[in-house]
Amino acid sequence: MTDLSRREFVHATAAFSFVSAAGIPAIGEAAGIDKETRTMTTAFDYEHAPVALPFDPKALKGISEKLIQSHWENNYVGAVKALNVVRGRLPQALNDASLPPYVYNDLKREQLIRTGSVVLHELYFANLGGDGKASADQRTRLSTSFGSYDAWETEFRKIGAGLGGGSGWVVLGYNEKLRLLENYWMGDHATNPPGTMPILVMDMYEHAYQMDYGAAAAKYIDAFFANIKWDTVAQRLGTVSKTA
Amino acid sequence: MTDLSRREFVHATAAFSFVSAAGIPAIGEAAGIDKETRTMTTAFDYEHAPVALPFDPKALKGISEKLIQSHWENNYVGAVKALNVVRGRLPQALNDASLPPYVYNDLKREQLIRTGSVVLHELYFANLGGDGKASADQRTRLSTSFGSYDAWETEFRKIGAGLGGGSGWVVLGYNEKLRLLENYWMGDHATNPPGTMPILVMDMYEHAYQMDYGAAAAKYIDAFFANIKWDTVAQRLGTVSKTA
Amino acid sequence: MTDLSRREFVHATAAFSFVSAAGIPAIGEAAGIDKETRTMTTAFDYEHAPVALPFDPKALKGISEKLIQSHWENNYVGAVKALNVVRGRLPQALNDASLPPYVYNDLKREQLIRTGSVVLHELYFANLGGDGKASADQRTRLSTSFGSYDAWETEFRKIGAGLGGGSGWVVLGYNEKLRLLENYWMGDHATNPPGTMPILVMDMYEHAYQMDYGAAAAKYIDAFFANIKWDTVAQRLGTVSKTA
Amino acid sequence: MTDLSRREFVHATAAFSFVSAAGIPAIGEAAGIDKETRTMTTAFDYEHAPVALPFDPKALKGISEKLIQSHWENNYVGAVKALNVVRGRLPQALNDASLPPYVYNDLKREQLIRTGSVVLHELYFANLGGDGKASADQRTRLSTSFGSYDAWETEFRKIGAGLGGGSGWVVLGYNEKLRLLENYWMGDHATNPPGTMPILVMDMYEHAYQMDYGAAAAKYIDAFFANIKWDTVAQRLGTVSKTA
Repeated sequence: MTDLSRREFVHATAAFSFVSAAGIPAIGEAAGIDKETRTMTTAFDYEHAPVALPFDPKALKGISEKLIQSHWENNYVGAVKALNVVRGRLPQALNDASLPPYVYNDLKREQLIRTGSVVLHELYFANLGGDGKASADQRTRLSTSFGSYDAWETEFRKIGAGLGGGSGWVVLGYNEKLRLLENYWMGDHATNPPGTMPILVMDMYEHAYQMDYGAAAAKYIDAFFANIKWDTVAQRLGTVSKTA
Repeated sequence: MTDLSRREFVHATAAFSFVSAAGIPAIGEAAGIDKETRTMTTAFDYEHAPVALPFDPKALKGISEKLIQSHWENNYVGAVKALNVVRGRLPQALNDASLPPYVYNDLKREQLIRTGSVVLHELYFANLGGDGKASADQRTRLSTSFGSYDAWETEFRKIGAGLGGGSGWVVLGYNEKLRLLENYWMGDHATNPPGTMPILVMDMYEHAYQMDYGAAAAKYIDAFFANIKWDTVAQRLGTVSKTA
Repeated sequence: MTDLSRREFVHATAAFSFVSAAGIPAIGEAAGIDKETRTMTTAFDYEHAPVALPFDPKALKGISEKLIQSHWENNYVGAVKALNVVRGRLPQALNDASLPPYVYNDLKREQLIRTGSVVLHELYFANLGGDGKASADQRTRLSTSFGSYDAWETEFRKIGAGLGGGSGWVVLGYNEKLRLLENYWMGDHATNPPGTMPILVMDMYEHAYQMDYGAAAAKYIDAFFANIKWDTVAQRLGTVSKTA
Repeated sequence: MTDLSRREFVHATAAFSFVSAAGIPAIGEAAGIDKETRTMTTAFDYEHAPVALPFDPKALKGISEKLIQSHWENNYVGAVKALNVVRGRLPQALNDASLPPYVYNDLKREQLIRTGSVVLHELYFANLGGDGKASADQRTRLSTSFGSYDAWETEFRKIGAGLGGGSGWVVLGYNEKLRLLENYWMGDHATNPPGTMPILVMDMYEHAYQMDYGAAAAKYIDAFFANIKWDTVAQRLGTVSKTA
């Protein structure tokens, strides 16, 4: 882009960044990534920068430093790199008249999967590192939406148990179209509900637990719950409600 | 729920409904569905009510009344009914100790697919019924995000062409985590990017065009563009930016 | 390949062609495609030739000539062309050191989908064009495997009904590893059981019926049953059993 | 079934069992499972019995006893149990008039996934436990089909590398309809080409390597190759060709 168009673009995209406007650090900001750098791009020349682990990798209870470090470095940063590679191939592919649209879509599908992996992993790491204790307010919020806090936790854990030995995510999300806080089963990075803000994200790919627990996915789910950072959950819920 | 908990719930969920707060009618409101009725539920007892077609089914250019009526009645309302049936089975299934978690997840997957179908269809119908003419402002916005308006349209159409003969959606969406306006390929109702607000939605399931165009998906894409209601697109973009 | 390697190859591949050896014409042969031409290739330079419709397109009951012609020409031949295009891109992609394996796999996935579409469509057309009347022997065979002929038909139709409005296939197949004749749900061209010979194949993509029946998938399923060519079903069952 | 129908059934199904007829033990036989027991069932009352590991779990090179034992016990036997549970639910579900066909299909999809997992795992374990050395004949066979043995191995490994960090299978299979020996990418247990006999099967789910290698999938692929039992590969190829 020319300098001029770049300035115009920054102006235009500034309007989009509602998440940080609500006072909650957007993904990347906590890690000190300059916001202007991240947004001063078009859909075609954007490059994603990895976000550092937002907690001390030695500090988790029941999830080893080795595992979480490998998870971050190999699976998450690997996904960031792959996303950038795939995105980098799009402009040429779009302009290649000999490339059939369905082959172009193979790249778009890969972009979608990697986008899902990057976004979900950042949300996952950001909701770990806490003491696992939901405040009375937070329990009430979930109780209001699910009938009881236990109903929420039971369903969230059950979905996780059903994903053991395979791959996928469990996500508590706020569906802005249905105006519902719901638990979602997701079979892979690209399986998501539309128009939904993720509030609490649990990785059920085997790389999230095999190294520590082998096939004992239930033990990992216990460890996940013991490390939930409920402040992050509350912030995400607050972002949704503050904008109301 | 008791009346008391119901009142508390309405209070609590009121905080979530940011979309309507921004002055843009949420899905359902335009169709006169009472907002309180729609939100006064938990994730387990929510029932979705179908939203009427927001335009005269005879008024579309190049998409027949017969097709759009069948699309609305059979595919969309059918998905609403299926969503309600599946949701209705969840509470018992959750409490059935003999039901393995992976069978519970089969229901959750069906819920996800039907949720996707319902939400995407409502967004689709709501961005049809216009004159297909983007304003200068709207073109500039897309140009800013994609390098040029033509680059946006070229990619959006190419993804659609690649889906011809199969099933899926093309969605221009605002990814709130990456802060990017992007075109997404989606292979089915449940394939979506996380944390993304759909802005313009094109149905590429064959029921969206076979009856009128047979296998000539490209002609349907032309018809879709001729009927885009750009005001809706602008409102959705505005919702995202106004909250900034 | 050199002439020598070509001769060696023909010799080697001859050993594979058990289907025709059992006296049942393999796919392609009925259409007069020279067998040697079809097998004298490696996995990397194989090109698939479309097989003509094995019946008069005007002769089906309740499935219009227009629909079946469009189905064959656009969806099936389109898949053949796509398969050849994708296969043609593989050798260069395999030798491109700068291409990440996961992008190579995007092509392999496309190859798999197109292979599935080509094979399933050929089997589908080949089991149409009959009078829909199963002989006593054929009914007994299904009865033996499913408890009763009606149990088989009920399940086969129910799977089809559940796919209405979406996409996929219903396949009666012989699983050679489990030694079971079973009905399978398949969500798309690439969703299949491993090690299974398809015996009766019903296309449930919307292009198989929308043009004639709109969303009324049940009517299409009736029409499908009225046109089943049970001789083909018997031949395929015979192929499996004759080799015993 | 009555005794009479049972006898008739055994007679009828005997005709199917071509694999053992060719002199190659079918799945289950090596483990001493009585053949008659296994086939004397209909599609609705079949129960699958787990097959023991066909090699000493301590004997693999670079794949630990702990991992392979967990893989067999948790992932494979777990899939067998799940398959039996799901199959056991089918008859009642089929006869439940209040169950919508699409919910019945959720069970059929789970059946398909578990069938895929069971069959592919049995093939996988059965092609491990060897010395990893392909004979000259076996190399020639692959060379004939892929241009060179190296081309085959390069592609097989590349597909595997692209699946690292996710889930899926790499399968060398003989497509009986295309009459081609090909390498296939498979994204999960239910993603397979139709009408194809698996010849060499490599598990790329993370449970196949995370415990030993963490995210280093390439090291696992080396270990897999070092343990290939080429005799099994040759037998499977022979089954295909002997029936010619």
